Amino acid sequence: MPAAKNVNVLVFQSGGCTPVMNASLSEVVEEAGRRGLGEVFGAVHGLDGVVRDRLLDLGRRRTRGFWKSVSATPGAVLGSGRRSLGDEDVPAALDTLEKHRIGYVFTIGGNDSADTARRLSDGAKHAGKEITVVHVPKTIDNDLPGTDHTPGYGSAARFVALATMGVGRDAEAMGPASPVAVIEVMGRDAGWLAAASILGKREEMDAPHFICLPEVTLDEDNFLERMEDAYRRWGFAVAVVAENATTVDGPVAGQQEPFYVDDFGHAYYEGPGRYLAQLAGRFLGVRARFEKPGTIQRSMMACVSRTDHREAQRVGRDAVAYAMEGRSDCMVSLVRDVGPGYRCETATVPLDVVAGKVRPMPPDYLDSRTGMVTREFVRYAAPLAGRLPRYARLLGPGAESC
Amino acid sequence: MPAAKNVNVLVFQSGGCTPVMNASLSEVVEEAGRRGLGEVFGAVHGLDGVVRDRLLDLGRRRTRGFWKSVSATPGAVLGSGRRSLGDEDVPAALDTLEKHRIGYVFTIGGNDSADTARRLSDGAKHAGKEITVVHVPKTIDNDLPGTDHTPGYGSAARFVALATMGVGRDAEAMGPASPVAVIEVMGRDAGWLAAASILGKREEMDAPHFICLPEVTLDEDNFLERMEDAYRRWGFAVAVVAENATTVDGPVAGQQEPFYVDDFGHAYYEGPGRYLAQLAGRFLGVRARFEKPGTIQRSMMACVSRTDHREAQRVGRDAVAYAMEGRSDCMVSLVRDVGPGYRCETATVPLDVVAGKVRPMPPDYLDSRTGMVTREFVRYAAPLAGRLPRYARLLGPGAESC
Repeated sequence: MPAAKNVNVLVFQSGGCTPVMNASLSEVVEEAGRRGLGEVFGAVHGLDGVVRDRLLDLGRRRTRGFWKSVSATPGAVLGSGRRSLGDEDVPAALDTLEKHRIGYVFTIGGNDSADTARRLSDGAKHAGKEITVVHVPKTIDNDLPGTDHTPGYGSAARFVALATMGVGRDAEAMGPASPVAVIEVMGRDAGWLAAASILGKREEMDAPHFICLPEVTLDEDNFLERMEDAYRRWGFAVAVVAENATTVDGPVAGQQEPFYVDDFGHAYYEGPGRYLAQLAGRFLGVRARFEKPGTIQRSMMACVSRTDHREAQRVGRDAVAYAMEGRSDCMVSLVRDVGPGYRCETATVPLDVVAGKVRPMPPDYLDSRTGMVTREFVRYAAPLAGRLPRYARLLGPGAESC
Repeated sequence: MPAAKNVNVLVFQSGGCTPVMNASLSEVVEEAGRRGLGEVFGAVHGLDGVVRDRLLDLGRRRTRGFWKSVSATPGAVLGSGRRSLGDEDVPAALDTLEKHRIGYVFTIGGNDSADTARRLSDGAKHAGKEITVVHVPKTIDNDLPGTDHTPGYGSAARFVALATMGVGRDAEAMGPASPVAVIEVMGRDAGWLAAASILGKREEMDAPHFICLPEVTLDEDNFLERMEDAYRRWGFAVAVVAENATTVDGPVAGQQEPFYVDDFGHAYYEGPGRYLAQLAGRFLGVRARFEKPGTIQRSMMACVSRTDHREAQRVGRDAVAYAMEGRSDCMVSLVRDVGPGYRCETATVPLDVVAGKVRPMPPDYLDSRTGMVTREFVRYAAPLAGRLPRYARLLGPGAESC
């Protein structure tokens, strides 16, 4: 007779933070409690905490109010990490699971973490252990296959849209004094976040006037032409550039020196935003600003999208439900209803669909000629970021002085 | 018998934008209407619009709803500008005032604009014209003398506080993967805005761990020591640096090349944030991030402080009231009530108090030994930025793994 399945729960957070990954964590913990699973443990700093047996007991001395507060906290309260599961780590990781009688593992992360989840599950199977592994999607990059979108994206997209609207109005107001701005946003291998800068654009003169995405090789002449065109027509020009936008010359424009070199000799370059701001400023003979919100864009709680927050809670809650239905080696995915209005349900997809894979923006969302994105993209992304304000304008094409 | 005083109104916006300078504008326009002054004109792009007679008629075809919407719009809907009034411009400016029968001028701006307001008034007096000039304070820098604080500061301070809280939680969560961040904020000649980064700090381990202000010459060794101390104790370290922080070597740390040189040969340097991030990263042997929200910090409407917005409206409204009482050549100032709770009234101060002057942070707000600011500063600034969220924490000194 096989031993009874362990009923304790292990959860960890992994990869770059999002403003709502703690909302997913809260719901995993609370739903596990509601459904009567065993003790709930959290590994500190992602997989590293599993391998090194650094776990926190999340059930004890934590009130409902505490988890509600976690749900509104940026970062990752368990600590995140970028460690991936090497073969040599598997025995230590399995020891930790066995020691704490873990039967359910929930990983909150992106495509790297999905790969770790798969390897952990494979390792357990190989060792004859029965472990249920469900992955909870999380990334502001929105680059996971197998899901309509990822929790975290909507809020970061909202930040980027609001920031672009504000920077646009600022450049427009400053006019001759400082009419050009380049905003560099995150997004690693895909342009979803940079593309979101268009969501607050209601008129042709509104920012952004150029969007530079990793999916489209940057043509510097086209960039300068578009910026000049906007500047001549509206008196200001704003571009939004993904941190990993690429030119024909290689991945990082205009940089000889890396920003930082780690102990392994890995070079960290800056993104292309600073370079492009200088390029545009010199070309137009005006002062150009370079803005880089960095981790502010993934931690500004004042810009959280309600839909995004709700869905982050939902995928956490449903991960527990699916695990108790017996599903494993899967990720909770968001499936958008066909039809008018916006509505999402959850489902599961096999980890193989996600692990280590990237979903770039599809070609019909891109307009490489204009350096912009299409209406199809706006229809896709607008409900995720939520309703954006509508600003007033006095100047512009309609304004006549008296 | 002297000619009757002109009753039309001219208003313009000047200097760097704030998220609430349109709120002041709206109230000037609406209050002038309510009190039965004449036509209300707005000059386009500040003084430039006055000199070049580019005015908009603000009364016509503008509904109450429109001005409400202006009040919630970032930037400067009239266009801002950095032009100051040279002696050679005075005749053209006075011509514009005469042509449109302007009796009341309201300037919305900082210390440079206060100087322009004074020169305009002097020029009018010299030419025998009776013009009432009232200055409406506005700057995120909070560096105007003669007022408890300036509208615009509270909202930018709120952004900086929230951004620092978020960046801190992100660096704390990422831990070994990217534990150090330097945030560069605005503030020109004074450190009020960088200092506001402390407003969300509730525990010693919370960000920021070092604040670098123009009022205190930066000691790089002290900076590195403080960052190392935070990193060793808490596993992460966050510094907030004013764009014009200075080292003993001069105004801009670590820069040989200017970022931009204009047609007059004026060199624009970057702030010290990027340099200090590199310095800290290399010293600690870890990845350091550099974040620069730039004009996002002065245009993010999701971070507007309610108190700040209300006061921006108030100074606009009261400027009209004071002008109609016969006060001129003055700025509306905010006067804080003594006693418990926060309450401000308005008063007026002569333009001479403000024009071209800067108010640095007073010594009792600074703690140069620790690279931080004092409780006195927090008591001063906290009500301006408004209530900040309280985030949850699982890790840290109290956390024990099991």
